Amino acid sequence: MSIREEVEVANATAVERMMDSEPVWNDIGLAKDLVPGFGDMMLLHAGPPIEWKKASGPLRGALIGACLFEGWASSPEEAEKLLVRGKVHLDPCHHHGAVGPMAGVISPSMPVYQVQDGSGVKAFSNLNEGIGKVLRYGAYSEDVISKLRWLSTTFYDVIRASLQELKKEKPGLQFKKIIAQALTMGDDCHNRYNAATSLFMREFVPYLIRSGVDRKEMLEVYDFINGNNFTTLNLGMATAKAMTMAASNIRYSTIVTTMARNGTETGIRISGLGDEWFTSPAPNVNGLWFPGYTASDANPDIGDSAITETAGFGGFAMAAAPAIISWVGGTSSKAIEVTEKMYRITFTKNRHFLIPAMDFSGTPTGVDIRKVVKTGITPEINTGVAHKMAGVGQIGAGLVVFPMGMFESAVRRFGERYGLVRGPAPDIS
Amino acid sequence: MSIREEVEVANATAVERMMDSEPVWNDIGLAKDLVPGFGDMMLLHAGPPIEWKKASGPLRGALIGACLFEGWASSPEEAEKLLVRGKVHLDPCHHHGAVGPMAGVISPSMPVYQVQDGSGVKAFSNLNEGIGKVLRYGAYSEDVISKLRWLSTTFYDVIRASLQELKKEKPGLQFKKIIAQALTMGDDCHNRYNAATSLFMREFVPYLIRSGVDRKEMLEVYDFINGNNFTTLNLGMATAKAMTMAASNIRYSTIVTTMARNGTETGIRISGLGDEWFTSPAPNVNGLWFPGYTASDANPDIGDSAITETAGFGGFAMAAAPAIISWVGGTSSKAIEVTEKMYRITFTKNRHFLIPAMDFSGTPTGVDIRKVVKTGITPEINTGVAHKMAGVGQIGAGLVVFPMGMFESAVRRFGERYGLVRGPAPDIS
Repeated sequence: MSIREEVEVANATAVERMMDSEPVWNDIGLAKDLVPGFGDMMLLHAGPPIEWKKASGPLRGALIGACLFEGWASSPEEAEKLLVRGKVHLDPCHHHGAVGPMAGVISPSMPVYQVQDGSGVKAFSNLNEGIGKVLRYGAYSEDVISKLRWLSTTFYDVIRASLQELKKEKPGLQFKKIIAQALTMGDDCHNRYNAATSLFMREFVPYLIRSGVDRKEMLEVYDFINGNNFTTLNLGMATAKAMTMAASNIRYSTIVTTMARNGTETGIRISGLGDEWFTSPAPNVNGLWFPGYTASDANPDIGDSAITETAGFGGFAMAAAPAIISWVGGTSSKAIEVTEKMYRITFTKNRHFLIPAMDFSGTPTGVDIRKVVKTGITPEINTGVAHKMAGVGQIGAGLVVFPMGMFESAVRRFGERYGLVRGPAPDIS
Repeated sequence: MSIREEVEVANATAVERMMDSEPVWNDIGLAKDLVPGFGDMMLLHAGPPIEWKKASGPLRGALIGACLFEGWASSPEEAEKLLVRGKVHLDPCHHHGAVGPMAGVISPSMPVYQVQDGSGVKAFSNLNEGIGKVLRYGAYSEDVISKLRWLSTTFYDVIRASLQELKKEKPGLQFKKIIAQALTMGDDCHNRYNAATSLFMREFVPYLIRSGVDRKEMLEVYDFINGNNFTTLNLGMATAKAMTMAASNIRYSTIVTTMARNGTETGIRISGLGDEWFTSPAPNVNGLWFPGYTASDANPDIGDSAITETAGFGGFAMAAAPAIISWVGGTSSKAIEVTEKMYRITFTKNRHFLIPAMDFSGTPTGVDIRKVVKTGITPEINTGVAHKMAGVGQIGAGLVVFPMGMFESAVRRFGERYGLVRGPAPDIS
């Protein structure tokens, strides 16, 4: 086979595995107990590897908050000292099969969702705190820490008991099916999870009722989920992570298996190039700002949530969720344009994720670095926006276009690795 | 003012009242206790007035089943005798502020939902039995009657207790808001209530939990609602009925306030023409048939559910629900065409019901008989299809185009009533 043919076969394998991966949510536990390789005094974070001194405000804020939550420090100042002195080991979520939205900070005592596919691949995400002033957007005030404590006690206990009840009937909850259905109900399953959360509740609440927890706690947890449409974002991200893990490490494949941002840099990883990161400076977001904020308050793009686009939904399914593009003044035909543009840089149309407004066409799935470099089109991502200062929180949401540099670097490395023409733009397509 | 101006003002009044009506679901009770004018040995039915001898198979089947449910007869044969001999008085639901899907048969001991708007207008609908072999599609076997008994005991008690709990906090459940949201989530709220039922459950279940009913019954009712996306069809119809009642009886208005079918005839009523019905033979449905059935098994169009189109959603919001048109081989652009066509015969774009795929345009609202006659375009309705024989049940679902004759008759009567040119096509537009 020619290199070109090797690549085609490898990409087909990668994308088929990604589409056909059927992970189910089958556990919730503390990060230190479930997430592989979680050490003492370690914090996981979104995006490619980064040190404290290069970390952006919201990532710093979330790291400080996590130190407070763990009791490693009793004040933000103490926490900052620990972090500056390197007493806390920082590691990307993605190095542990995990993903976290925005700052994506996961500490050892935080509960995480586990999803698992038939082949045994496990992926993890933390719990969603709601919107506004929350850890993942860099806030760390006392109410933020209290919310984390409630999530890791009452919420955790009730969800755990309910999931155990569910597991008496089935191996787990098939969240990928909920994503597929929600994409036909106005969600992109990145910035909008309204239908997904509704469908999740329909399926999950009977087990909540059966779990035997007392009605007061049941209602407390019910009201929290019902009041926060992003409750299921983290399950969606863990599902996408498992799907993309199924597509990883396939020789010759030019398919992107990770897209993630730490607030300073954006990074990608490629199926045929193992665990190597290719990075560019994190871009700014075209956003809709909460009252009182402007673009100048915004931190550059941050979070592991681009795993949704990596797996073929989120911004790539923009045509399914015109409400999102209307935030930034777009129309429904503009939403279709975004999805159509993403077809030009992806391997195929998804077999499971369909878009009603495009006659149930499959979503663009499997970003191919060759197509990105050739067309000059980079992935478009839906995202939330954090204030650039530690301690503030969310200030908006919007759309972001990824930088080209990291895709060019990846194509270059691919050439080196597989013995193709070296130089700035190897022709491997 | 010229007649033309009188009509414009009257139509604006009618449609504004319809759009701004804010009915809430605030009671559930037995039909004989809540529905005004419900007499002994009386059954309500869908569509314009009809006698037994002209009734279609599915309507006959449902009437027989209702006699069995009430204990007026102990066998279908006995029930039929009662009906043939005129021992049971038949009256349209619409003559009592009520609506019922398909055969629309409401008997005195059946529970009904009551919705009420700020002005005191009350509208009613019966409970939804699920799909398949059910009374409203003309089935009356023992399992059909048992289901009705369960609905009027366990289900009724649990829903009643939960609604009482809800009413401790608010005057009622605003189902119109749920319709508006569901239209942005892939529902037309006539043939598809998947999002609406999900949203209803999110809002209602906390009161179910708080109601104090035992967990076994709570789960039984929860599972029934969760397993039947049409649970909320009847609440949507009662809501639409209240909205259209608010638009009724406005002098000079040419807006349609009722569209309903009894399986033999289709009938309409007009705001400026009071309670008079204008009818045409019921048309056939362009349907998708359940396995084993064909068009030749289908009863002509039946049911009060066209109240949804009358109020500006259902088939008129087809562009919001491309999944429905795909049943009959249509595409999403065809779905948009249907909605665009309905703009040509309606007064305005709805202020509250918006269609994402059309840049959040309002749904076509307020059918104007003048525009129907002038354009030659009649309303297009989404509907279920009953077998033409009594006792069978549902055999499909599809789309139906209303007949022109009744609109021409209404325009003619409008001319007579308001002193305009008599004759086959008075120019009142």
